Amino acid sequence: MSKLKNDLFLRASKRKEVERTPIWIMRQAGRYLPEYRAVREKADFITMCKTPELVAEVTVQPIDILDVDAAILFSDILVIPEAMGMEFTMIESKGPQFPKPIRNEEDAKELKPVDPYVELKYVMDGIKQTKDALDNRVPLIGFSGAPWTLLTYMVEGGGSKSFSEVKKMIYNNPKLAHSILEKISVAVTDYLNAKIEMGCNAVQIFDTWAGILTQDDYEEFALQYVEKIISGLKVKKEPVIYFPKGIHSRYGRLAKIGADSIGLDWNSDIGKVRERIGNKVALQGNMDPTILYAPKDRIRSEVKKILKSFGKGSGHVFNLGHGILPDVNPEHAKALVQFVKEESKKYH
Amino acid sequence: MSKLKNDLFLRASKRKEVERTPIWIMRQAGRYLPEYRAVREKADFITMCKTPELVAEVTVQPIDILDVDAAILFSDILVIPEAMGMEFTMIESKGPQFPKPIRNEEDAKELKPVDPYVELKYVMDGIKQTKDALDNRVPLIGFSGAPWTLLTYMVEGGGSKSFSEVKKMIYNNPKLAHSILEKISVAVTDYLNAKIEMGCNAVQIFDTWAGILTQDDYEEFALQYVEKIISGLKVKKEPVIYFPKGIHSRYGRLAKIGADSIGLDWNSDIGKVRERIGNKVALQGNMDPTILYAPKDRIRSEVKKILKSFGKGSGHVFNLGHGILPDVNPEHAKALVQFVKEESKKYH
Repeated sequence: MSKLKNDLFLRASKRKEVERTPIWIMRQAGRYLPEYRAVREKADFITMCKTPELVAEVTVQPIDILDVDAAILFSDILVIPEAMGMEFTMIESKGPQFPKPIRNEEDAKELKPVDPYVELKYVMDGIKQTKDALDNRVPLIGFSGAPWTLLTYMVEGGGSKSFSEVKKMIYNNPKLAHSILEKISVAVTDYLNAKIEMGCNAVQIFDTWAGILTQDDYEEFALQYVEKIISGLKVKKEPVIYFPKGIHSRYGRLAKIGADSIGLDWNSDIGKVRERIGNKVALQGNMDPTILYAPKDRIRSEVKKILKSFGKGSGHVFNLGHGILPDVNPEHAKALVQFVKEESKKYH
Repeated sequence: MSKLKNDLFLRASKRKEVERTPIWIMRQAGRYLPEYRAVREKADFITMCKTPELVAEVTVQPIDILDVDAAILFSDILVIPEAMGMEFTMIESKGPQFPKPIRNEEDAKELKPVDPYVELKYVMDGIKQTKDALDNRVPLIGFSGAPWTLLTYMVEGGGSKSFSEVKKMIYNNPKLAHSILEKISVAVTDYLNAKIEMGCNAVQIFDTWAGILTQDDYEEFALQYVEKIISGLKVKKEPVIYFPKGIHSRYGRLAKIGADSIGLDWNSDIGKVRERIGNKVALQGNMDPTILYAPKDRIRSEVKKILKSFGKGSGHVFNLGHGILPDVNPEHAKALVQFVKEESKKYH
């Protein structure tokens, strides 16, 4: 940790003293950057994920361009199901697709255990090259999808509006759902441990579809597996972040799953969450990504509002409440980073 | 009210004593019913909305088939923008579309005031025919979209994932957004008043996209207009229901907007909401619609859980937390209605 020139993100995620609030942006290596689109023109999305040189190039871009306080390894949450043996395609207009989704015991039997250094060697190589390119400027975050969120894609076969198929599975064959979630959890634990071993300074678990479950089902099909994964991580000082999109309650429970930091989407009032969750975990978030469409003075006032809502003291990592949108003006993203740096000093 | 053979829904919505908890189902006149699909084969969706005989036929179907405690007039929230002059098409694979969305002052100027007895005469005729067909068996609910939700469709031109266009408008040209919201609010108020005058026994305002706004923006662009509409309604005994999907906080505020009843989606714990919102309003909801994919014993246990969570006393109208899904087995919907009737007696 000490070798890093800027470790603000790591300190804030562990609720240690910082001079100002650190910031990074979900999907900061993304289509809104012309520099990213230039790389993307040379290779399709999956090829990019699997080419360590390109991974390093786009991961470092937002550090150079926006001057954010952390890098997040360019990848996709669906590399795990692919490594488990599922054929995976990315159709620009439709998003990620699994042409042969998992619907029964037969399908589930086909899922293979994953050795992250074999099936996901390209990710490990990407980490190595990215670490070299970053040269200890900022910490590198590695991420994974949470088991529940991965299960939804694996069963639906892609994105969904009503999530009918995965809901049918958990209600009609919960045993099957649990057996797949179990397998995914093992793969995710090994994957994140390998990322840490390869030098990632923090890990984030994305539970994008947490919000479609009832509160009891969220505990049974999502949270218990996240807790299990976290307890299986061989972390020393590396913070663990859990981002349950669409969850706006159960903060007492979330404070106890073993994560150092909880990501919030933009429907939460970060100050009220801090009050309820207490001083047990750090919070990451939570500006509405569409605020970046607004003029710069509106972006600044939103930054001030969120910083004020969180209040004095450490334990806040600024971020958006969801990924940055592809048609955002990069100048607005730069301004956001600058505003957080300027406006947050007085809270520390 | 007194002429109705079954007024349980009206009494519960006003927190008056009932013998058991009433139930109706959002989108109960819908594609999951073979009887509905038979009508739908004869006419496309928009034609159905505009043909009073067909409106009456499909509105009454779930009363005959499921034996629910209220009817809701078959219609669509987008009849308002269409009445304001926007061309509207329904594409089966893409959902509702406005080929010429509102993006600037010029576009907004084209929006016309609405006389519900002229532009929406077909709805009024539909109410008349439905009332005749219902023959006072159960109350008839009339509904409208909330101004914010209607604005999203009018500006996006259809459904959306990131709602970029409407967000750009509220952040870059809030004045324009407010002027359109103002016009929509006038149209919705007159529309709901006409529905009440024609004999609707209750009105529900659907705010399907409430949950995409930050808390401050929700107040500014959504809630203040709903409050204004409610204060302009010429209701005598007719309950007013507001359903802000995706809102899981601000219950104190929601209790004060003038609605008799607040609809909850399935991410809320109805018992906890009742605790926080106090005894000021009734609550409607909130079973996960996908539970209807489960075996009947699981449906029954979910019904019991929700009834127990709400607890003793009046002020609960059972419903799903969102519309019933098109591939649900109608036998399961029937079972749900039966279970609510059986299991709720002991709470009254």
